Amino acid sequence: MDLNNIKDPSVVKDLSPEELTHLAQEVREFLINNLSSTGGHLGANLGVVELTLALHRIFESPRDRFLFDVGHQSYIHKILTGRGKEFDSLRQYQGLCGFPKRNESEHDVWETGHSSTSLSAAMGMAIARDLKNENHSVVPIIGDGALTGGMALEALNHIGHEKKNVTVILNDNEMSIAKNVGALHGALGRMRSAGRYNRAKDDLEWILKKIPAIGGKVASTAERLKDSMKYFVVPGMFFEELGFTYYGPVDGHDFDDLEENLEYARKTEGPVIVHVMTQKGKGYQPAESDVKDKWHGVGPYKIDSGEKIKPADAPPAWSEVISEALRREARTDDRIVAVTPAMILGSKLEKFGDEFPDRLFDVGIAEQHATTMSAGLATQGMKPFLAIYSTFLQRGYDQVIHDVARQNLNVIFGIDRAGLVGADGETHQGVFDIAFLRSVPNITLMMPKDENEAQHMVHTAAQYDDGPIAIRYPRGNALGVDVDADPKPIEIGSWETLEKGTDAVILTFGTTIPLALEAREQLESRGVQVEVVNARFMKPMDEAKLHEIFERDIPVITMEEAVLQGGFGSAVLEFQSDHGYVNQRVHRIGLPDRFIEHGSVKDLWKEVGLTVEKVVESVQESLPTTEKRA
Amino acid sequence: MDLNNIKDPSVVKDLSPEELTHLAQEVREFLINNLSSTGGHLGANLGVVELTLALHRIFESPRDRFLFDVGHQSYIHKILTGRGKEFDSLRQYQGLCGFPKRNESEHDVWETGHSSTSLSAAMGMAIARDLKNENHSVVPIIGDGALTGGMALEALNHIGHEKKNVTVILNDNEMSIAKNVGALHGALGRMRSAGRYNRAKDDLEWILKKIPAIGGKVASTAERLKDSMKYFVVPGMFFEELGFTYYGPVDGHDFDDLEENLEYARKTEGPVIVHVMTQKGKGYQPAESDVKDKWHGVGPYKIDSGEKIKPADAPPAWSEVISEALRREARTDDRIVAVTPAMILGSKLEKFGDEFPDRLFDVGIAEQHATTMSAGLATQGMKPFLAIYSTFLQRGYDQVIHDVARQNLNVIFGIDRAGLVGADGETHQGVFDIAFLRSVPNITLMMPKDENEAQHMVHTAAQYDDGPIAIRYPRGNALGVDVDADPKPIEIGSWETLEKGTDAVILTFGTTIPLALEAREQLESRGVQVEVVNARFMKPMDEAKLHEIFERDIPVITMEEAVLQGGFGSAVLEFQSDHGYVNQRVHRIGLPDRFIEHGSVKDLWKEVGLTVEKVVESVQESLPTTEKRA
Repeated sequence: MDLNNIKDPSVVKDLSPEELTHLAQEVREFLINNLSSTGGHLGANLGVVELTLALHRIFESPRDRFLFDVGHQSYIHKILTGRGKEFDSLRQYQGLCGFPKRNESEHDVWETGHSSTSLSAAMGMAIARDLKNENHSVVPIIGDGALTGGMALEALNHIGHEKKNVTVILNDNEMSIAKNVGALHGALGRMRSAGRYNRAKDDLEWILKKIPAIGGKVASTAERLKDSMKYFVVPGMFFEELGFTYYGPVDGHDFDDLEENLEYARKTEGPVIVHVMTQKGKGYQPAESDVKDKWHGVGPYKIDSGEKIKPADAPPAWSEVISEALRREARTDDRIVAVTPAMILGSKLEKFGDEFPDRLFDVGIAEQHATTMSAGLATQGMKPFLAIYSTFLQRGYDQVIHDVARQNLNVIFGIDRAGLVGADGETHQGVFDIAFLRSVPNITLMMPKDENEAQHMVHTAAQYDDGPIAIRYPRGNALGVDVDADPKPIEIGSWETLEKGTDAVILTFGTTIPLALEAREQLESRGVQVEVVNARFMKPMDEAKLHEIFERDIPVITMEEAVLQGGFGSAVLEFQSDHGYVNQRVHRIGLPDRFIEHGSVKDLWKEVGLTVEKVVESVQESLPTTEKRA
Repeated sequence: MDLNNIKDPSVVKDLSPEELTHLAQEVREFLINNLSSTGGHLGANLGVVELTLALHRIFESPRDRFLFDVGHQSYIHKILTGRGKEFDSLRQYQGLCGFPKRNESEHDVWETGHSSTSLSAAMGMAIARDLKNENHSVVPIIGDGALTGGMALEALNHIGHEKKNVTVILNDNEMSIAKNVGALHGALGRMRSAGRYNRAKDDLEWILKKIPAIGGKVASTAERLKDSMKYFVVPGMFFEELGFTYYGPVDGHDFDDLEENLEYARKTEGPVIVHVMTQKGKGYQPAESDVKDKWHGVGPYKIDSGEKIKPADAPPAWSEVISEALRREARTDDRIVAVTPAMILGSKLEKFGDEFPDRLFDVGIAEQHATTMSAGLATQGMKPFLAIYSTFLQRGYDQVIHDVARQNLNVIFGIDRAGLVGADGETHQGVFDIAFLRSVPNITLMMPKDENEAQHMVHTAAQYDDGPIAIRYPRGNALGVDVDADPKPIEIGSWETLEKGTDAVILTFGTTIPLALEAREQLESRGVQVEVVNARFMKPMDEAKLHEIFERDIPVITMEEAVLQGGFGSAVLEFQSDHGYVNQRVHRIGLPDRFIEHGSVKDLWKEVGLTVEKVVESVQESLPTTEKRA
């Protein structure tokens, strides 16, 4: 079958078993080939080839609603719904999104990216369906890792209570983004090993007959014993307790097993869980044998060997810089522990865990718990370092306010993937954290300009004893600068003048500093002297320097790779206003008030105007008319 | 015993059973008497009198750590730890806090207010204890309602997995703030009815002997049958599945039963759940017979009758105004449904539920799920109205960004208790929502000045079809103004000039409008003409009016009962900067960058400078020197 020309999922309906098996093979080859050049979430998608085909055979999309939790496993669904031909643009600027996207297809009814949202959305859809007297299935597909996110558990609890028709597909690959965490995972393991109802049924009946008739004082106990049999015949009693009918475990690579159980589930009244066992990376040897889940999300690779194609001699990743600096601090300060919500790999904490196995805590996909657990650690004099992506810290926002900042506890936030993240796009851009953190009392927020400053900031945070402190750092690689032999503390709130100038001042930090420096050079050649300040603390700001700058009465340009509404530039305006500096233009450069889609960070910067040209232009427009030199 | 003079909890250690029973009676009388004049969370505290006394007998506070989830049930703990004499100042300005507070006592090791945080904090404390090789108990006390909050479930999952020594006290009163929601609650009910292990043990052994020895093909099935017995002997198998040892159900008003089980729990290795059954309002007839939980949090009342002491003829509560307007809209628009996270009473949704029983959804304490479920409803063309307190919307912040705003879905947020809330204090102040919402794309945010505008805003929101829209409204009663017969739509983003003036302009909204109007009158008598604008949309702002104001080149004062950092005034500064208006002072009045404690809203306004005097002063200081009239 030409996968580029599939128009809609009806093509899979009438296939023979042989044709179906063949199609699964073609899909795998398609994914392995395409992703070898574009990159993408290969492992997860190879694991759900048969499952996705079976879902589209048993259910009728878009009449029946598929909700892909997290959504990085929706590639086969995209192929079957007419988007195969767009896979060469996967995760590229203006190309196919790596997650479900409602404007791509009527078959994408729910957009994801963050974990654990699908059950709540499915409940909303089921309620709407019933109120409108419609009759279709709502089918969230959720991984075992995403299931431990608090909101998925909230939804499970509510769906089971309301007895709504929701058909949950639990895609259990025993490994979400990292090795799974949590007691629930243990319960799933027991379900897996318990085997299936049908196989045990005959045996059970034989045994039941052997139990003697019982009367007298133990009669009610005997009754309860027989009741308790359901826990025996139904391995998914954890879910049964929550009001769900459990089917499984199902072999997720066996079409017969899948379709039989999905068909049962489709016809069952009330909430259902189909527990499907899949293997991540199935059918591609390098990914299948990947115990560390390094094939979760990949860049380009060589198909034959699985070797990753990477630029040689790249500087270390920012995550690596930070976690290595942390590891160094931890050697001399045993109050330091690291906490991560299922991101040991992403946040590069493996070496920390190797050296300090008792001081690294992976709590699973549970950002709220991770944040408040860190607060609990801090009440006992520990120095927890919570490594968390900017976009996922949004999940712990109330915990940051209510548990950490309000109690002014010494939690260190390592805010990873701050700024635009590129290929993951809209759902993962780390662009709100400055706005949502700087309005919270007691928080210190900083961002390093390079890996040397990064190590100093980690050291500063480790020594800081006056409440929460956060270091934000971007996705991707650091600059490759030389690093001091020893880290040293940076004065809280101190900015650094990188280049002097008398005509205008640019206040910026982190990733946008190189843009400012290049703009400065271009302007210098035109006779305009621009000062560039590394405004490395977003909160508190360097008030002495701000007074000094505003007293000079020259234009001020702020630049940030973050939303402008309520952001750093806004904080500068507040300072200006609060101290009565009028007559002076502040021009803010940053992200506009809309969501930014996927694409390379370079393309995205161009789109939003984070460019040298824009900085040059802004400075020139800010200058008094007589000084505007060209 | 003189409860005002208890110094520390050692006083309860050596009491005889009779003395203990007598003390419990004294504590109840103390609470009923004191709260009759101060108000407070009477019902919950009456329910945990025996439990709290027993906890302090079996454990050693502060060596052992008590964490009171939500924390409104910590009054008896406060009495036993030397704070009885301060109860006449309970929840008053600069008086005793209604929640645990670390600066009040070394026995308060964890501050709460929001729900479901105690297990995560306890896990952090347990990890710290083990790393430091200390040896004490960590004892979170959590209600059955709080247990269904997602972060509590995340923590349960993690604690069970790591097998840490944490002694969870599940205070099951079958009614949290409202009647409990969720399948987990059903499971708790089955545990309650299942009775206790000890009672069934003898019976069970008799039966086990009667099961014949089995060989051959069914041997493994028989083994598994015997395994499954644990579900029979342990009624709490839901928790056992998650790795906890379960004790219960325990009669929470029987000292013997309590102490026996708490002592077992204290000595048990690994995570433990003690399932304690309590009755809210126990020992005070009006509260005991309260099926609607109206004694959860109360104002002053007459002790004999339980009659609430309220000012006569008060205008309707803001929550009532909004939910009644919603009910009216729902009559003609069947897309409208209401969603609440366990706040049917607080958000005054009872009448809505009476009229539209199929269109009101109480999801329990589950703000994340409530938000995303609303998004799911909106994808299907429904118009969900999510009634949620400002402070609790913080829990759904990621869901607002990722699920609602990013997909630009038509969810209406009814942001209740916006602004300072008074007696509940620090943890409940609804002061961050403007800052955290206005940086999110696609959101419309408004606040009414009175109940008439409120009904128009509800109507406006019901008709709005271009994405999320939020109405924020304060705690307490509306103004008592006349209300138009029919609601009419308000143009999105339009402000309203309330009073004209030529010397300065005050931009404000909601609760602070009366302050502005009074300041205007005082200034007028001194010859200063101040314009007052009802800036009822915080986002989008009225740009035409802003241009008109800034072109007049007179001072602008912004005023908000919300944090200044990133708030409304900051948005005005951004507008000013973006459009190049210089030479003009904008003075912002609002809440400082620190957490605000409990007290009457009036006292708090005075503390933070939300006063007529401050407004008058700010206007005068903003005027050009020649105009500063006194």
